[in-house]
Amino acid sequence: MAIVRGLAGNDRDTSRLEAFSDGVIAIAITLLILEVRVPHVNEGELDGQSLWSALGDLWPSYLGYGLSFAVIGIMWANHHAIFKHIVRTTHYLVLLNLLLLFMIAFIPFPTALLAEYLTHDNERTAVIVYAAWILATALVYNGLWRYVRTAGLIDPETDHTAVATINRRFNMGPAGYLIALIAAIIWPPAGLALQAILALLYVLPENSKL
Amino acid sequence: MAIVRGLAGNDRDTSRLEAFSDGVIAIAITLLILEVRVPHVNEGELDGQSLWSALGDLWPSYLGYGLSFAVIGIMWANHHAIFKHIVRTTHYLVLLNLLLLFMIAFIPFPTALLAEYLTHDNERTAVIVYAAWILATALVYNGLWRYVRTAGLIDPETDHTAVATINRRFNMGPAGYLIALIAAIIWPPAGLALQAILALLYVLPENSKL
Amino acid sequence: MAIVRGLAGNDRDTSRLEAFSDGVIAIAITLLILEVRVPHVNEGELDGQSLWSALGDLWPSYLGYGLSFAVIGIMWANHHAIFKHIVRTTHYLVLLNLLLLFMIAFIPFPTALLAEYLTHDNERTAVIVYAAWILATALVYNGLWRYVRTAGLIDPETDHTAVATINRRFNMGPAGYLIALIAAIIWPPAGLALQAILALLYVLPENSKL
Amino acid sequence: MAIVRGLAGNDRDTSRLEAFSDGVIAIAITLLILEVRVPHVNEGELDGQSLWSALGDLWPSYLGYGLSFAVIGIMWANHHAIFKHIVRTTHYLVLLNLLLLFMIAFIPFPTALLAEYLTHDNERTAVIVYAAWILATALVYNGLWRYVRTAGLIDPETDHTAVATINRRFNMGPAGYLIALIAAIIWPPAGLALQAILALLYVLPENSKL
Repeated sequence: MAIVRGLAGNDRDTSRLEAFSDGVIAIAITLLILEVRVPHVNEGELDGQSLWSALGDLWPSYLGYGLSFAVIGIMWANHHAIFKHIVRTTHYLVLLNLLLLFMIAFIPFPTALLAEYLTHDNERTAVIVYAAWILATALVYNGLWRYVRTAGLIDPETDHTAVATINRRFNMGPAGYLIALIAAIIWPPAGLALQAILALLYVLPENSKL
Repeated sequence: MAIVRGLAGNDRDTSRLEAFSDGVIAIAITLLILEVRVPHVNEGELDGQSLWSALGDLWPSYLGYGLSFAVIGIMWANHHAIFKHIVRTTHYLVLLNLLLLFMIAFIPFPTALLAEYLTHDNERTAVIVYAAWILATALVYNGLWRYVRTAGLIDPETDHTAVATINRRFNMGPAGYLIALIAAIIWPPAGLALQAILALLYVLPENSKL
Repeated sequence: MAIVRGLAGNDRDTSRLEAFSDGVIAIAITLLILEVRVPHVNEGELDGQSLWSALGDLWPSYLGYGLSFAVIGIMWANHHAIFKHIVRTTHYLVLLNLLLLFMIAFIPFPTALLAEYLTHDNERTAVIVYAAWILATALVYNGLWRYVRTAGLIDPETDHTAVATINRRFNMGPAGYLIALIAAIIWPPAGLALQAILALLYVLPENSKL
Repeated sequence: MAIVRGLAGNDRDTSRLEAFSDGVIAIAITLLILEVRVPHVNEGELDGQSLWSALGDLWPSYLGYGLSFAVIGIMWANHHAIFKHIVRTTHYLVLLNLLLLFMIAFIPFPTALLAEYLTHDNERTAVIVYAAWILATALVYNGLWRYVRTAGLIDPETDHTAVATINRRFNMGPAGYLIALIAAIIWPPAGLALQAILALLYVLPENSKL
């Protein structure tokens, strides 16, 4: 049974969809480093500053890299968790997955915005754009998962508790990101702190009640 | 039967061709974000402008990202649709596939051109170059599909309606892109609108008459 | 037999080596487009020039993209042709393959050099560096293939003519690239023309006498 | 037995984890070339210099590319060596692997720092940051390997000497990188030389006593 499933036409479909998604997500997550730029301490406004201090001043870039790496990394892990239960693809699954990749591949832009404007006048705008994009991505992700369940693409042999765990996490996601967005509007640092906490929650064991 | 096909030498050929193509297409689609550049509102000509307004002014970049993501994404989906029916590779299939990847991997350049010149004096030139390149890519794609059919590389067990669907879509593609190119020459915004409409047509179910 | 080979530990080794190599080669070939930069016709030295003429002036960038895409694409096809006959990996095969990927991943740099200096004073230097790097890469590739044969890593069931074809092509490669390097020293355009001819030779059918 | 393992659910888990890791590591290693920038000999401070001499002056960039390519390449080979013995994944393995990829994907930044500041006033700072990051990455790697062993994720049929070899190498790594960091603090060139020597040690055969 396992052998047949492993090689049937439909499974070959999902494995190529997974491979392409892995590629896009892996590239998006690795491109984040291109936004952490080496400081030039002997030129222009940084002249006379020590390299240590200039490296310290880059903390918004490190924060952006770390936060978005965690966000995209968790999205990859969720993709992996969902697709291992999907037995076949449909035209709309391919389209919804492309839409999801569209959202994820864009994340380096709000991340760069965050790194550029944190601690500057326009910090609030940058944090709101970041939080709103992550929320929108989470909503697209939820739409994909909802479609997968209603279209009957889940392996009938899948353990019910596995699906329930994904459901619980997917229900929590947008709610958490919405609160982070509201916090960002009120006080940007709180919005960012909530994003970090949401990422850290993922570290909890899978069978935790959260 | 399925098992043997899954592991035979020829199938290993196509799976590595697919993996390499997935890699190139995934990278080309993800590199598009590098052309959406963070605005610098406290320097040079943007000084004094709000970040919200500067972000709004980036709409040609968002349009380029969105349109090319859709175009390349559909090309990937078509690659996937074609290759699942191909049972073996030949020297010329490898070459034609490399030519196709050459065309696709170049798309970030006309996209950047579009984002740079939309709403500027040279808008027409940029839209024509974009439309012409997409048309040329569609023609190469058709050549590859024509070769696959005439060289007998399609799995003999493939459903005839599946091949007919691909044929119909591949016949429509260059015609549509040619009309979009002509429109771009006459009035650039119409050319772009047609590109967007062609991408949206793909959302129609596979068994639609289009 | 085919089934067992397909899943045995050693084969899993070569398939992950292939996947990693596919990734690096796919990225190197796709990064080439980042060196084709959009011209800015309303600023600095290009002010007043039409966009068409500025796009025409980019021909050294297009040439670099096209030539290196062909060179790297053929290297990928050769990698594919070699590895499908390799039944197991060794520590030294992993190392030699890493050295080969080191050579290939560097190719975007001499390509950018070529695009920058073609038709300028330092054209000869740029073409020599390009030709020398391609020659060095071909030599590393030959070393890898020589190692594969002498270490007995080739599937004993492999057709002798397949190995002979690879041998003939691998013997021809460095000789051709050496002539291209010498030509580049004498007259740079001739060196480039030879590189293009060597790439085009690959289009010949596999059973041709070349 | 081999067949069942090859297609069971757990093995599918590790293979997707491997594929994503291959993607991130392949991209990080290939992005290194973006930091080797073409010199502009007819502009600014390089005016009048020959291209050969300008290319020679780029040696810190070549050194950074070569050293980090070796470091990341060896990390990939180790990943490959470890994961072929892992039979299933857990939530924490996925998290630890993401943390490892976070460390590896960041390496292009200290590499660019090294290329920028070598032979300049701030050389010591750049070499210390580089050495410290590689040490931290090695420690995360050791943590992952320690977790894999204690959580019982290793295939029980794995040869004990294979595990012992990985243990010996993983014990040596952080010690070597710590010495390289201390050397970098005392005399930066010695720190870099030690990094190069550690990379070269890897060339020794797997059954050597080192």
